[in-house]
Amino acid sequence: MTYCVGVLLKEGMVFASDSRTHAGVDNFAQFCKMTVFERPGDRVIVLLSSGNLAGTQAVISVLKQRGDAKDAVPNIWTVRTMFDVAVVVSDAMRDIERRDAKHLESSALTFNASFIIGGQIKGEPLRLFRTFAEGNFIEAGADTPFFQTGEAKYGKPIMDRVITPTTSLTDATKCVLVSFDSTMRSNLSVGMPIDLACYERDSLKLSMRRRFESGDPYFTALSKEWSEGVRAVFKLLPTLQW
Amino acid sequence: MTYCVGVLLKEGMVFASDSRTHAGVDNFAQFCKMTVFERPGDRVIVLLSSGNLAGTQAVISVLKQRGDAKDAVPNIWTVRTMFDVAVVVSDAMRDIERRDAKHLESSALTFNASFIIGGQIKGEPLRLFRTFAEGNFIEAGADTPFFQTGEAKYGKPIMDRVITPTTSLTDATKCVLVSFDSTMRSNLSVGMPIDLACYERDSLKLSMRRRFESGDPYFTALSKEWSEGVRAVFKLLPTLQW
Repeated sequence: MTYCVGVLLKEGMVFASDSRTHAGVDNFAQFCKMTVFERPGDRVIVLLSSGNLAGTQAVISVLKQRGDAKDAVPNIWTVRTMFDVAVVVSDAMRDIERRDAKHLESSALTFNASFIIGGQIKGEPLRLFRTFAEGNFIEAGADTPFFQTGEAKYGKPIMDRVITPTTSLTDATKCVLVSFDSTMRSNLSVGMPIDLACYERDSLKLSMRRRFESGDPYFTALSKEWSEGVRAVFKLLPTLQW
Repeated sequence: MTYCVGVLLKEGMVFASDSRTHAGVDNFAQFCKMTVFERPGDRVIVLLSSGNLAGTQAVISVLKQRGDAKDAVPNIWTVRTMFDVAVVVSDAMRDIERRDAKHLESSALTFNASFIIGGQIKGEPLRLFRTFAEGNFIEAGADTPFFQTGEAKYGKPIMDRVITPTTSLTDATKCVLVSFDSTMRSNLSVGMPIDLACYERDSLKLSMRRRFESGDPYFTALSKEWSEGVRAVFKLLPTLQW
């Protein structure tokens, strides 16, 4: 499985993804699920992949190849808006599905890739999208400022409690990491390292990017203080009188 | 959907279930998912139902009818062990499935009932089981002292942090309610009222049973203090230095 989060804030955006993939518990591996398309001063686009790895990798490769092709076809480096970026990703997904779907069907599998897509293109606002397996997509807004894919439920309560559009980048980053901590504690299919990227609005460059390996001192401290703090709060909660 | 929890402790057991059922968001309703079979001094058996309501209600009705029948067939009032109780429940599930499954198939539905079954029969230890849709079942032990069914993921992190076999009945009760609070905050398919039962080991009667309606003063206070406490802990967590 996978856990990916993208957050849209007034101040900027936060993206994070785990690195565990598996085909059964006896076949798990590590792959980076975060892809960045960055041309400083022009555009920063972050993609977080979830779903069948063969499918998501193929989509990313197609996006890169089409971006390198220098022909007239709209691609991730030439489109004018983040909406058009989402369309380019969706088109790549549908092309891969057209190629693979009938072969997957013979093993009762489906093409199930989905992406969180966010970023900014010069002169345009910050935007955040989430594609579905069918290639259609939705956009985040003030009412729903974050998207999660994969094993989203364990880490949703803390996101629901903390994240609003006016949350600071610093707090949103902390919150996303706590959300990963809760998820990894309760579900083996989500695992370190965690790839994190924070984008500051209108900077048009991705200056904050970091990978948290297992045993990372900051993440370990965060996890320990969160765990102890939550237990302390729990202890002080009122007891039910029967 | 549904959220049910059963906890097996040295001191006793805790059971809780929500009351929301739905067939699409435009058709939701309220049903109690907790059924108690109690003969003080002899046995206390608690069942928590999840899955298709027609199926779970039919299973409960069959268990009750067979228990009233006074014939020689082993039933929930006559069997000697909690394992045999789980077998009786499983048999009822399979009988209903035999009757319904082929009719459900015609609408691409499956018989998906599952139960958490726990309690104590005189002279026997406390035991906790969880059935699967196929009628097979597993038993809780020291390594895994609780079972959840339905929308289990949102509320699992706090259970994982707090519950061990030596947790007190009081703390386990608090923890289960916090787990429900997190779940209901993040998922509309789980809703009040919550039915709660605490069973004290070897008491052979269920003296602690309570329903929390929406607006219940204790649950509201618990929810508020938990929310404020968690936010306070979050605020004090260390900030990531880039």
